[in-house]
Amino acid sequence: MQPIITSGIDRRKLLSALAVLPALTGLPLIASAQAQTAASENALPSWNDGPAKQGIVDFVRVTTEKGSPNFVAPEERIATFDQDGTLWVEHPMYSQVLLKKPEPKTVEPFKTVISGDREAMAKFTMKDLEMILAATLSGMSVDEFNVEARKWLETARDPRWKRPYTELIYQPMVEVLRYLRDNGYKTYIVTGGGQDFVRVYSQRVYGIPPEQVVGTAGGTKYEYGKDGKPFLTKEPKLLLNDNNAGKPEGIHLMVGRRPYAAFGNSTGDREMLEWTGAGAGARLMMLLLHDDAIREYAYGPAAGLPDSKVGTFTPELHDEAKKKNWTVISMKNDWKRIFSF
Amino acid sequence: MQPIITSGIDRRKLLSALAVLPALTGLPLIASAQAQTAASENALPSWNDGPAKQGIVDFVRVTTEKGSPNFVAPEERIATFDQDGTLWVEHPMYSQVLLKKPEPKTVEPFKTVISGDREAMAKFTMKDLEMILAATLSGMSVDEFNVEARKWLETARDPRWKRPYTELIYQPMVEVLRYLRDNGYKTYIVTGGGQDFVRVYSQRVYGIPPEQVVGTAGGTKYEYGKDGKPFLTKEPKLLLNDNNAGKPEGIHLMVGRRPYAAFGNSTGDREMLEWTGAGAGARLMMLLLHDDAIREYAYGPAAGLPDSKVGTFTPELHDEAKKKNWTVISMKNDWKRIFSF
Repeated sequence: MQPIITSGIDRRKLLSALAVLPALTGLPLIASAQAQTAASENALPSWNDGPAKQGIVDFVRVTTEKGSPNFVAPEERIATFDQDGTLWVEHPMYSQVLLKKPEPKTVEPFKTVISGDREAMAKFTMKDLEMILAATLSGMSVDEFNVEARKWLETARDPRWKRPYTELIYQPMVEVLRYLRDNGYKTYIVTGGGQDFVRVYSQRVYGIPPEQVVGTAGGTKYEYGKDGKPFLTKEPKLLLNDNNAGKPEGIHLMVGRRPYAAFGNSTGDREMLEWTGAGAGARLMMLLLHDDAIREYAYGPAAGLPDSKVGTFTPELHDEAKKKNWTVISMKNDWKRIFSF
Repeated sequence: MQPIITSGIDRRKLLSALAVLPALTGLPLIASAQAQTAASENALPSWNDGPAKQGIVDFVRVTTEKGSPNFVAPEERIATFDQDGTLWVEHPMYSQVLLKKPEPKTVEPFKTVISGDREAMAKFTMKDLEMILAATLSGMSVDEFNVEARKWLETARDPRWKRPYTELIYQPMVEVLRYLRDNGYKTYIVTGGGQDFVRVYSQRVYGIPPEQVVGTAGGTKYEYGKDGKPFLTKEPKLLLNDNNAGKPEGIHLMVGRRPYAAFGNSTGDREMLEWTGAGAGARLMMLLLHDDAIREYAYGPAAGLPDSKVGTFTPELHDEAKKKNWTVISMKNDWKRIFSF
């Protein structure tokens, strides 16, 4: 996965070098518009031509081209991405794998966690989540948590693809992340998943540093070990439930700016897209539709299937997307391939 | 203030351009070590030679020079700065200026807020802070708050210098911020002040974007106006009391990395410096001592004065600084000038 990051950095370096070159050397520079078109073509090789790809390329052009009426200042360029079902395959809630204490598996909310019913989990109250937090992580130091999370990521395998979960990331989305970064966008993950968990691998897997991961987050407590050294312990107190309305609230808390682009795939991302779209100027809102039963999954009513246990792309969300001009990405039609392997 | 930011960005662009130039043009490049030494000399013109300036320059050298045993990867370069009394003159708590409702000024915690007794305010409990939050900001939309804060910043004047508060920033510290950024450090403000308040001017004044401001933060609520447009309202719930232990806890929540450098000036910054110093490798911990009664203020027991109402640089903190090799910056001796005017 390392090359993703390295190549992202090099390209950025190169671009900023090119931007300054003429001033330093007086050399003629390739016409920038021409270069940009070529760059767009090369930047999204896993995308088929169509409205989704075109929407991304157009958005980048109108927000970054000098003189464009929708030009966005570089420091304002924020793009947010849901993770589960948007950047990688939806997995059973990982907090269960970190369950330290044997909790009664027939009692709520643990029963729902064990069942893997994502729709039911999306309806957890703050109290439910605090109970789960308390059972799974409370009293663990942040360092211990990181060790456990890394261990799980190294050993766990997806039952269908027999690969580590961090390899089940969508190659077309990795290209979008990189393409936006190459055009000055700061890319953020805004996930209902645990913030500290995602931060363990976000840099390596997506090229997104920990400080650009907003997720469901609990409090910590500053304490001292016997050696007098300070450490942080995870507390049962929930600070942010980063789903639904919690997404714009979390973005405000952690970023303090409204995104210009937002990507999601379920009702849990609705408010984030709505918040993004309510800003002035050109905004990009996209929803990924899982309609590819052969290469990945087809699920949810919007894919013409009865409601399933994963994903919540409801008919209402589909209608809203149409009404508000949010672009629906069809996994089946818009993507040449799903994974890098 | 704009030139601060612009010049910071240009310099970074130039540096990354220089780094790539030889590969592109084959031109010989000025020896980088030589360039770095010259850059350090020019980067801190408001500092007198001495252990404080030397400490900063040495830290940057050992953490950024290729091949150095203490080399820090660019993405790990995090530096955190307290604001009040570290980046700018300590002011009476600004939340009082935003008091919307007439609160009983003889009742705690409002009595203490009005008195301007910072030491007493530093001891506020979460409950005290929530009461203040509820009285001052609760029910205000984030947009309304930003308007109010901007209005206050434009009109309010410091009674001694008769200038806007945002001009009372310490020029030597602005140079440190810029110098660290030019060497790949991400600079963060970590303040006991209100996160949303500081974010209003952090980019313009310090070149620090809102997403790199960690402060005392309340929750928000996602709501809809009569026109159906969503907005965020400030809630009376406090998420982070960003003082003392709240500083490392806030850094973990918002950044997810341990800083390599931390700057403060009072007991409220003790845990942040301690947390920074507990990391491996070269770390820079600095405390600013207000010992310059003529050009700014001399206050606190560490400056040889009886305890005063602003600042809490106690003898215990001074002892700890000595024991742990934290550098004490003497405003009087280490700084050629205090302000840019």
